Amino acid sequence: MGKESSTNKLKIINDPVYGFIKIPFPEIFDLVQDPRFQRLRRIRQGGLTHLVYPGANHTRFQHALGAMHLMGQAIEVIRSKGHPITDEEALAVTMAILLHDMGHGPFSHSLEYSLVKGIEHEEISLMFMEAFNREWQGGLDMTLAIFRDLYPKKFLHQLVSSQLDMDRLDYLKRDSYFTGVTEGVVGSDRIIKMLNVLDDNLVVDEKGIYSIEKFLVARRLMYWQVYLHKTVLSAEQLLVQTLSRARVLRRSGEPLFATPALDWFLLRPPDRPVAEDGDVFLEKFALLDDADILVSAKVWCDHPDTILRYLSRGLVHRNLFSVELRKAPFPKEQIDSLRRKAAEAFSIPLNDTEFLVVSDSISNNAYSEADDRIAIQDKHGRIRDITEASDMLNMEVLSKTVRKYFLCYPKNLASPTGK
Amino acid sequence: MGKESSTNKLKIINDPVYGFIKIPFPEIFDLVQDPRFQRLRRIRQGGLTHLVYPGANHTRFQHALGAMHLMGQAIEVIRSKGHPITDEEALAVTMAILLHDMGHGPFSHSLEYSLVKGIEHEEISLMFMEAFNREWQGGLDMTLAIFRDLYPKKFLHQLVSSQLDMDRLDYLKRDSYFTGVTEGVVGSDRIIKMLNVLDDNLVVDEKGIYSIEKFLVARRLMYWQVYLHKTVLSAEQLLVQTLSRARVLRRSGEPLFATPALDWFLLRPPDRPVAEDGDVFLEKFALLDDADILVSAKVWCDHPDTILRYLSRGLVHRNLFSVELRKAPFPKEQIDSLRRKAAEAFSIPLNDTEFLVVSDSISNNAYSEADDRIAIQDKHGRIRDITEASDMLNMEVLSKTVRKYFLCYPKNLASPTGK
Amino acid sequence: MGKESSTNKLKIINDPVYGFIKIPFPEIFDLVQDPRFQRLRRIRQGGLTHLVYPGANHTRFQHALGAMHLMGQAIEVIRSKGHPITDEEALAVTMAILLHDMGHGPFSHSLEYSLVKGIEHEEISLMFMEAFNREWQGGLDMTLAIFRDLYPKKFLHQLVSSQLDMDRLDYLKRDSYFTGVTEGVVGSDRIIKMLNVLDDNLVVDEKGIYSIEKFLVARRLMYWQVYLHKTVLSAEQLLVQTLSRARVLRRSGEPLFATPALDWFLLRPPDRPVAEDGDVFLEKFALLDDADILVSAKVWCDHPDTILRYLSRGLVHRNLFSVELRKAPFPKEQIDSLRRKAAEAFSIPLNDTEFLVVSDSISNNAYSEADDRIAIQDKHGRIRDITEASDMLNMEVLSKTVRKYFLCYPKNLASPTGK
Amino acid sequence: MGKESSTNKLKIINDPVYGFIKIPFPEIFDLVQDPRFQRLRRIRQGGLTHLVYPGANHTRFQHALGAMHLMGQAIEVIRSKGHPITDEEALAVTMAILLHDMGHGPFSHSLEYSLVKGIEHEEISLMFMEAFNREWQGGLDMTLAIFRDLYPKKFLHQLVSSQLDMDRLDYLKRDSYFTGVTEGVVGSDRIIKMLNVLDDNLVVDEKGIYSIEKFLVARRLMYWQVYLHKTVLSAEQLLVQTLSRARVLRRSGEPLFATPALDWFLLRPPDRPVAEDGDVFLEKFALLDDADILVSAKVWCDHPDTILRYLSRGLVHRNLFSVELRKAPFPKEQIDSLRRKAAEAFSIPLNDTEFLVVSDSISNNAYSEADDRIAIQDKHGRIRDITEASDMLNMEVLSKTVRKYFLCYPKNLASPTGK
Repeated sequence: MGKESSTNKLKIINDPVYGFIKIPFPEIFDLVQDPRFQRLRRIRQGGLTHLVYPGANHTRFQHALGAMHLMGQAIEVIRSKGHPITDEEALAVTMAILLHDMGHGPFSHSLEYSLVKGIEHEEISLMFMEAFNREWQGGLDMTLAIFRDLYPKKFLHQLVSSQLDMDRLDYLKRDSYFTGVTEGVVGSDRIIKMLNVLDDNLVVDEKGIYSIEKFLVARRLMYWQVYLHKTVLSAEQLLVQTLSRARVLRRSGEPLFATPALDWFLLRPPDRPVAEDGDVFLEKFALLDDADILVSAKVWCDHPDTILRYLSRGLVHRNLFSVELRKAPFPKEQIDSLRRKAAEAFSIPLNDTEFLVVSDSISNNAYSEADDRIAIQDKHGRIRDITEASDMLNMEVLSKTVRKYFLCYPKNLASPTGK
Repeated sequence: MGKESSTNKLKIINDPVYGFIKIPFPEIFDLVQDPRFQRLRRIRQGGLTHLVYPGANHTRFQHALGAMHLMGQAIEVIRSKGHPITDEEALAVTMAILLHDMGHGPFSHSLEYSLVKGIEHEEISLMFMEAFNREWQGGLDMTLAIFRDLYPKKFLHQLVSSQLDMDRLDYLKRDSYFTGVTEGVVGSDRIIKMLNVLDDNLVVDEKGIYSIEKFLVARRLMYWQVYLHKTVLSAEQLLVQTLSRARVLRRSGEPLFATPALDWFLLRPPDRPVAEDGDVFLEKFALLDDADILVSAKVWCDHPDTILRYLSRGLVHRNLFSVELRKAPFPKEQIDSLRRKAAEAFSIPLNDTEFLVVSDSISNNAYSEADDRIAIQDKHGRIRDITEASDMLNMEVLSKTVRKYFLCYPKNLASPTGK
Repeated sequence: MGKESSTNKLKIINDPVYGFIKIPFPEIFDLVQDPRFQRLRRIRQGGLTHLVYPGANHTRFQHALGAMHLMGQAIEVIRSKGHPITDEEALAVTMAILLHDMGHGPFSHSLEYSLVKGIEHEEISLMFMEAFNREWQGGLDMTLAIFRDLYPKKFLHQLVSSQLDMDRLDYLKRDSYFTGVTEGVVGSDRIIKMLNVLDDNLVVDEKGIYSIEKFLVARRLMYWQVYLHKTVLSAEQLLVQTLSRARVLRRSGEPLFATPALDWFLLRPPDRPVAEDGDVFLEKFALLDDADILVSAKVWCDHPDTILRYLSRGLVHRNLFSVELRKAPFPKEQIDSLRRKAAEAFSIPLNDTEFLVVSDSISNNAYSEADDRIAIQDKHGRIRDITEASDMLNMEVLSKTVRKYFLCYPKNLASPTGK
Repeated sequence: MGKESSTNKLKIINDPVYGFIKIPFPEIFDLVQDPRFQRLRRIRQGGLTHLVYPGANHTRFQHALGAMHLMGQAIEVIRSKGHPITDEEALAVTMAILLHDMGHGPFSHSLEYSLVKGIEHEEISLMFMEAFNREWQGGLDMTLAIFRDLYPKKFLHQLVSSQLDMDRLDYLKRDSYFTGVTEGVVGSDRIIKMLNVLDDNLVVDEKGIYSIEKFLVARRLMYWQVYLHKTVLSAEQLLVQTLSRARVLRRSGEPLFATPALDWFLLRPPDRPVAEDGDVFLEKFALLDDADILVSAKVWCDHPDTILRYLSRGLVHRNLFSVELRKAPFPKEQIDSLRRKAAEAFSIPLNDTEFLVVSDSISNNAYSEADDRIAIQDKHGRIRDITEASDMLNMEVLSKTVRKYFLCYPKNLASPTGK
């Protein structure tokens, strides 16, 4: 625990989204002060989204504080409806929401497709929580139980992780504020006021149904308009390929500038399970942020490898891939043709064009009918799933995973004569 | 035409929703100055909504100016996409949107169920436009053609009256601003930027599809959360019955305070066609505003008639009807039982309880598949209805008229012992 | 006390300025329900300001709830800084702020210059509080002590009435929101967070000094840009003269339409002390609202008296007086000349032109160095007046009363040939 | 010039502050696409401000676009008041505002005190403009004339650089939006609407006087509350000393990680005039951004040099200097005593404590009476300086440079026992 007096730790922080955010417990202050948490200041919430929405430079640090702020509101509402939450539980669930995204690295989604393939951020978040718990001699035991959904009052877990958790309520509102896509604004205030608890589960009072409908539609809008925006997608693919190519070069022994933290990840064998690295993985991960990658890519702009040079320049100078989107997979012939053109245009072996011509798919469902449904409670205390309670939303569609296939390749390549 | 110089008439007006609104043509200034238009300053846009949302005191005057402001934006966007709109057309369509709601009386919906039963506000708006046209020697000919959809460029009519007209874009945004129901906020900016014209019809560019989805959902939310809010409904029924009872008394010769304008309407036989009164109707209508009704109801709070007294006090002191809502009609027995209780509690004949126990229905559909569909244009210029273009919205449901039945009756009446 | 259960009374109200406002005590709910308080729904906060800023239709009802909301925040902040406020005190001071403006009639400032000349609204507010106190058997004893500044914890009075009271913090923010004059926005959140108590007096923590400076400048801006806007001034003079002329006619026995409530005030001798009417005054006052005056003026538009007719039409059709402003009184010759022109143009006796040509003055000081200064507390607990603590504001100027003289007269009168 | 078609270049960009920003000329698009301009995406507008206001991650890229947007509004207003601006001039002045801040490096103010001491950012901006001008064969001739104030229509220069330029109007509004210090909000809309031109000079119409007053007060508030916030100051000092220490080590031959761009600046002799490096300086400068410095400081956290290690850790982990502020210089004894303590606590020579105990001063004047005054024009076309026109602001004080002295030193050092 830090050295400042406890009341001094209850700081007030200016947040443009909510006005003022208060640190509610001294322990929270100590977590926020930790270098591993401070690192979130250097990781943009939206990865490369800012290349399309220049305002989107907000960080995971802000988001974590925002979600914590909403948790405070939710605790107050639920208590006021007669469902007790002890102070210890309040602290534990607040810690859980604060730390829930600790496992995100820089450009999270891109990284999960390159340097830390196969390792989910929740897993790393859990590793951080366990590390804190050891250092605090069990001070996060209840937090861990809540995070793992082993705590009897299930609604505490649902406040941290469910289709209506404080994480989503904050990030939709925040991303909306910083991108300027005002239509994504979510009435988090009103939704939180409608939260209730029934049989230890989080439910929504019936008159909140329209707000939930709007929340789901806003979320969908943000997905297609921001998170899966085709230009954002194209930028992320550029980054994925840049890092993949850099790793190939690094592991093959080519000289390559990299910050020490990034270098460790470039050298690490792809797909190695986290367990094998033990604490070293966590230590290195805690050192990595957006700047390591940006700075390295800048240096690679002059690297002798044609491919790495092309990809890095694209990223740094915002000269992105062309991108096409469709509902079905792209025909093999189209891809092969592009790869041949790329091989010729860049004078590289056909094999190496996998870094330049990329086809894959993305998917999204606005609402999942899986285990953690949004439950609507009518005034008689009866529960229905939002899919039944709402006569408006086509829940079949909302729940269905929408998959889109994309094809990325260097600009000008599609023209008859290539580059 | 007024006497000020033409450039002096291009005033700038402060509007909290859009910042600044500019009067775009001298002729518009003259219309705004007309006492018949100034009267809209004294008519609340939302009728009795302010009894539930205290901020909702905004007027039809503000709304008309706001819709005019959006029309200016739409004209600019459509022109910039290569579809010519002459200055004369711009003036005409701006006049049309400015005057489109002139036919609203005070507490419009309630009035249509009592004093001006059977007369739609569009009909009266048209009468006003024709009166202006006579006074201006044909200056509104094109405006009338657009308003009546007789003008070749159909999209001009659609900007004034369709499922995506400037009227709706303004009132949803404005009602949202003044009620504080922030979730109803509509991205009118973005929607207008997506407007386009194809074969003389208004269409929406494909990438505006999510904004349209959100617009329809926000509209639906505003309907159930604001316009058809059960307490608003209850207040409106109180007003309908107050005016109906007052008319019965007035026409039966009982002494009754009323402002001169209201008195004329109380005496006018119910259901008389407008045509019979000719210009007198319009003249009297132009004198009537919210204040006539509020002031008369205040005086009626001490009227000897038990029923009128009860209703007026309910309205003035905000002691509203109890209201129940359901999807099917209320059983006759329930209604009869309430009417018997009312007869006893108020010591009035059973017949007269029709003013106190009211059952009827309201309905709403968020989107109508009728003639003026929302047409989405893809990049190849192909048109689809939003119902096909959107995979998200359950358009079958959206298009289906939702009908709700309500039952209003004096508070306490439902208790076993009556009042 | 009302019949609903206590918890049912802790309603949440939508307010566009603050989001949600919670009724903090059951007793507050009962006061809000009272017809005398409900009447504030029918009195615009800004009088005739909406003739210049069409959005300014917000009511004293909203403002009273808003000031109550801020009071709740202030109580919480002061308690959190270690200064106890008992629940009884919290209720009492909340009642005081809720009722502080009860004594405002319709178009308050205009009325104080015509129908209720010489009676300040604070006096009437006090009469209402005393009436409630009698009805509630002493339930407002502490409220009255606080309102009259007889309560030992002086800061409670200062929260209700001082240069930094919740009244001002709300009305500046609210008027800014509804007029659309965004520059008047006051950081009430931040100011309240900086409030503290020293020796039973309200003080401001030192780091709030820039917020206070900005508050004073914003207040000044609102004064000159809104409250004392020359067109608003002109409209108010029109109203003052309309009512004055109507009273002369009514008291001289001429037939004159008026609502019963207004009629009582028209007949009441000018300048009679309130004490003489006793409870009747309060009862009649509680019946009067904006609508009585608007409706009567509408009827007077066809009155045979040339002057009343002219004035009423000006008011109803927004055909306002010409107005000139200057720093020195207008020369008698200019006024006399205008009055002669008016006599001729309107064919009325020279004496009667006092209703048409009006010269008077208005004044304002942004900050008064009188008894209730704004006290700044540094970290050592030392107190300085804001005039000393701020090196920025010219406090000499801020404190000096700025007086402006105005001259109002019928449009066109100044032209050589008169009307 | 780029290869896209001209109309394709008139992109619309989402900006949370203004909604939508349109690229007004194809040439502007080409400038924005240039890697040297894209680099501004990686430089935070507020340097280390985000360590106090976590929302303040907005970049110089956004600010440049915002200022460009306001320029478009100003051009429109000035033209509408009858002062011609040719299309060529409009393009030139828009280029000038877009590029006006190109000369800012990462953490601009800190850099000017360490790595690029003695070189002002305006000088570097000019170098960039000249480089573009050479590449575009004189396409920026008029832009350069305007920027250097050699163009006859002086008001064009004043829109780019004066006390009321588009730069300030944007950054105050933008910093306010992203820090959440809502009181700093400037009514840029209203101020721009009040702009006018007299004798080729930018003036403000008289009724804009209150808005100007408010602008100056808001600016002052932002200075003391944000830009010169003592914690921001402390962070900047930490950065200045980190870079200074790193340079000493690097130039003395110690091994030190640095990105190539940063390394060049670390090795460059301090105070060498820019002219000596010629184009190399500009090329290296264009490679440097926030990430170079952050990443290097992260690596330095484990450097063997005690001082560099301490400073870097402070910066990266947000363990900042203690800071004291006062109006007079700090006594030499106090500083010496702290340095002795530091020498002991860190076991370093007394000389080296200059990196740990820093005393200097900052200054600010809200308004400068120097050459580019804010001129108010009354309705008779007479000009007065705002200092005369405003009776409110103490211009003597506003114009006076306020100097504050600060003293920074490692936390815990002031305690009797040192570290």
